[in-house]
Amino acid sequence: MESDAQSWTLRELADLLGGAVEGQTDLRILRLGSVDSDDSEALAFVESEAFLARAESRGIGALLLPPGFATAKPCVRVDNPRVAFAKLLALLDRPVQIHTGVHPTAVVDPGAWVHGEACVGAFAVVERGARIDAGARVYAFAYIGERCSVGAGAAIYPHAVLLRDVDVAARAVVHSGAVLGGDGFRYTWDGARRMKVPHVGGVRLGADSEIGSNATVDRGTAGDTVVGVGTKIDNLVQIAHNAQLGDHAVIAAQTGLSGSTRVGDRVVMAGQCGVADHVTVASDTIFAGGTGVTGDVREPGAYMGLPARPIAEGRRILAALKRLPDLIARVRRLEKDEGEEPTL
Amino acid sequence: MESDAQSWTLRELADLLGGAVEGQTDLRILRLGSVDSDDSEALAFVESEAFLARAESRGIGALLLPPGFATAKPCVRVDNPRVAFAKLLALLDRPVQIHTGVHPTAVVDPGAWVHGEACVGAFAVVERGARIDAGARVYAFAYIGERCSVGAGAAIYPHAVLLRDVDVAARAVVHSGAVLGGDGFRYTWDGARRMKVPHVGGVRLGADSEIGSNATVDRGTAGDTVVGVGTKIDNLVQIAHNAQLGDHAVIAAQTGLSGSTRVGDRVVMAGQCGVADHVTVASDTIFAGGTGVTGDVREPGAYMGLPARPIAEGRRILAALKRLPDLIARVRRLEKDEGEEPTL
Amino acid sequence: MESDAQSWTLRELADLLGGAVEGQTDLRILRLGSVDSDDSEALAFVESEAFLARAESRGIGALLLPPGFATAKPCVRVDNPRVAFAKLLALLDRPVQIHTGVHPTAVVDPGAWVHGEACVGAFAVVERGARIDAGARVYAFAYIGERCSVGAGAAIYPHAVLLRDVDVAARAVVHSGAVLGGDGFRYTWDGARRMKVPHVGGVRLGADSEIGSNATVDRGTAGDTVVGVGTKIDNLVQIAHNAQLGDHAVIAAQTGLSGSTRVGDRVVMAGQCGVADHVTVASDTIFAGGTGVTGDVREPGAYMGLPARPIAEGRRILAALKRLPDLIARVRRLEKDEGEEPTL
Repeated sequence: MESDAQSWTLRELADLLGGAVEGQTDLRILRLGSVDSDDSEALAFVESEAFLARAESRGIGALLLPPGFATAKPCVRVDNPRVAFAKLLALLDRPVQIHTGVHPTAVVDPGAWVHGEACVGAFAVVERGARIDAGARVYAFAYIGERCSVGAGAAIYPHAVLLRDVDVAARAVVHSGAVLGGDGFRYTWDGARRMKVPHVGGVRLGADSEIGSNATVDRGTAGDTVVGVGTKIDNLVQIAHNAQLGDHAVIAAQTGLSGSTRVGDRVVMAGQCGVADHVTVASDTIFAGGTGVTGDVREPGAYMGLPARPIAEGRRILAALKRLPDLIARVRRLEKDEGEEPTL
Repeated sequence: MESDAQSWTLRELADLLGGAVEGQTDLRILRLGSVDSDDSEALAFVESEAFLARAESRGIGALLLPPGFATAKPCVRVDNPRVAFAKLLALLDRPVQIHTGVHPTAVVDPGAWVHGEACVGAFAVVERGARIDAGARVYAFAYIGERCSVGAGAAIYPHAVLLRDVDVAARAVVHSGAVLGGDGFRYTWDGARRMKVPHVGGVRLGADSEIGSNATVDRGTAGDTVVGVGTKIDNLVQIAHNAQLGDHAVIAAQTGLSGSTRVGDRVVMAGQCGVADHVTVASDTIFAGGTGVTGDVREPGAYMGLPARPIAEGRRILAALKRLPDLIARVRRLEKDEGEEPTL
Repeated sequence: MESDAQSWTLRELADLLGGAVEGQTDLRILRLGSVDSDDSEALAFVESEAFLARAESRGIGALLLPPGFATAKPCVRVDNPRVAFAKLLALLDRPVQIHTGVHPTAVVDPGAWVHGEACVGAFAVVERGARIDAGARVYAFAYIGERCSVGAGAAIYPHAVLLRDVDVAARAVVHSGAVLGGDGFRYTWDGARRMKVPHVGGVRLGADSEIGSNATVDRGTAGDTVVGVGTKIDNLVQIAHNAQLGDHAVIAAQTGLSGSTRVGDRVVMAGQCGVADHVTVASDTIFAGGTGVTGDVREPGAYMGLPARPIAEGRRILAALKRLPDLIARVRRLEKDEGEEPTL
């Protein structure tokens, strides 16, 4: 898959990065790749002997190499290959294609407001009371419902839904298929059936936040569900009604936050975590993958397990668990020595 | 986020709810909110001293207060603030905006039937053999495939997919991005590759049922996948081919039901549960979050853990697990006293 | 839900399957069903006494029966009812409805290429540099982004998104709502906020592979995320940036593969598994539902648990866990006999 029509010679790359070429200076690099690739027209970076060994065993065309490493492959020698590589990534990065202005097939309600420098893609729908600010990009099939707002420079990718009362701040990103503003999942049992609790709140995404593909963020019952400034939510994450996420948190894929949870600033959750309803999680906590947070977590630190425990304790328990079948045998032996009747 | 153009004075609210104003009677309330909000134009309800303390520490403008509580904030005194609040929620609740009749951009197959009092939104697609009944709302980008039916008063939200042979009964709700009627996940291994088992069954949703945003319900191999009357399915839930869910069940977010599972009436599953294929779950069972149901559950009651255990037993095991590392040390000490060789 | 206008008499079915009718030869069969159905116009298959008992207690109209079983219901006697039933399923199976050629509402960029024998449905969007090959079906609302390719005979179902640089090989299937090619979830912390790591790689799906409804497959940072030939991915699965899946693997619903995981050929994962980043999983391994793979798995075989353990060891631990509360009591008794101070 060609990631850009652009290409460089190794010499051009070295100039760009302030490095020195070794080997074939006019080798043409068409793509960035990894040390595990066999792409002879791609460049990868090496930052350890292990990386180098992998690169040497594969067909990757050229390497970014730090001082002190030797290779027979063409390479550009730089002080920090990872940083240099990130510079090249940024050079190649460019927005997903979008029509300038409002695409003729888009349906924009007369009661909506779209900034002259916003882009609205094919078949997008913008309902009454919605606002699309300067430089915002609303991609094909996006649904921007009643009283939703899309801030300056924000991006709403294809098929994302802002159902209603969703406020997306500047530069925030909502990835494809994400659904924001659906009803919260609350019912009351009247003895025969479940009655729906009406939801009239909204959703607020902070500036520079990001919501992953096919993630869901429900509206609040009354008051808003909130995702803080700079907080990044991965694919397929569920955020229930009235959850409050702080700033600069990172929530990895398939994690679920129940209703009215409060998650502090800079919290990091690995994938497939779950947080029970009304639980409060302190700022600067970290959760291993699959952690189940069933009660408040007041102390910053790292946690794991179901229920969540400090990671040192969790590891001790896991190590002990491995020895449990043997432990039962040992206790049986002790009981025998004691002349006790084994109970099991 | 303004949830409605409507507003009330405290006096009007008191009249509406049969309560008594205390404090500023002409205070204008624009929104409903929570005790944790700083919105001075919003009203929240208090039902305990803890709620009241939270409200007092925040800027929320006015309160619904039960007898026997005192506050300096403007308030409306009512017998049951939670019930009064629900009344106000219901007043504010109103359908998501939709075009009356069939939107000019919608593509309706000549072989489909749409009731004169149904609504079909922008860019909706309705295929041949589909039926949309009176008062049904089919929102923008909904796909109503061949031989699908949408019952009276049902709602299919933006971007939902009824792929084919999906029968949605009266007043049922399918939230945004949900996919109903996709192929079941069944293959047979022929020694070299997996051969797809064709799926020709459908999906049936009972009256008043609800399917959450981005949830998936696969069609049956032969015969239908069934969701019972009044059963509520949360976001990102997976319901596999030929699963049979009873009536008035509640399945919270990110839970997965495997193929041919049978889940009884009024079952409640918290988030991230999993049920193995062909398992039967008795009516009136309750599952804690993250429960893994690997075998039949025949007795009503509450369960937790992987594998699912009665909740009292599960709690005993969790409590014991916490003590396991210490137990190993105790057994080692006993062995030493006995003069035994420690085995580990 | 009627799965086809077609119908057969029992006699016609017997001729079709090379079997013998017993009972009412002119009974008209309209649908295929299961032994648990009460549909008197449907046919189900029986392969055991247990199946037969279920069928006898229900209203299913007719049965496919193996030699040696007796029933009062009309039936067709065949050697292998399961295989005969699969033949009938294949007869009933047919593609989801699609417009021949390019639908007039579709938006195809002049810089895209669509084969004359491909189908492009209503409101589909095909961006510049995209290629749709012969016999491919791109359904309603599908988004085929820049430099994406859809191979011969492949199917992209309604609402699927190929964001950009996604290469779908021949006969592969992308189900409704799946999102391929979204940004990977990688950030670097600069001391005050998370900086997005640009992603410029793509996604490659092998021939005959399948991606489930609402699943997500992120693009690589540099280089591609890869799903091998014939590999089947179920609904709501997450596949992160630069993951590499081998050929003929099966990944069941709600499983998550983290960044840069490597999963071998013919691997089978049941539902809700998780694999940590950079982990390598050997070919021919099998994982029980809910397994958490936190480190490399080098030996083929069956695994379970969090962390993943060989299944025999995992079962031993689960069995021991059930006895743990009792074990604590036994150790306390031993300590008492020893005259030790109980420590807990």
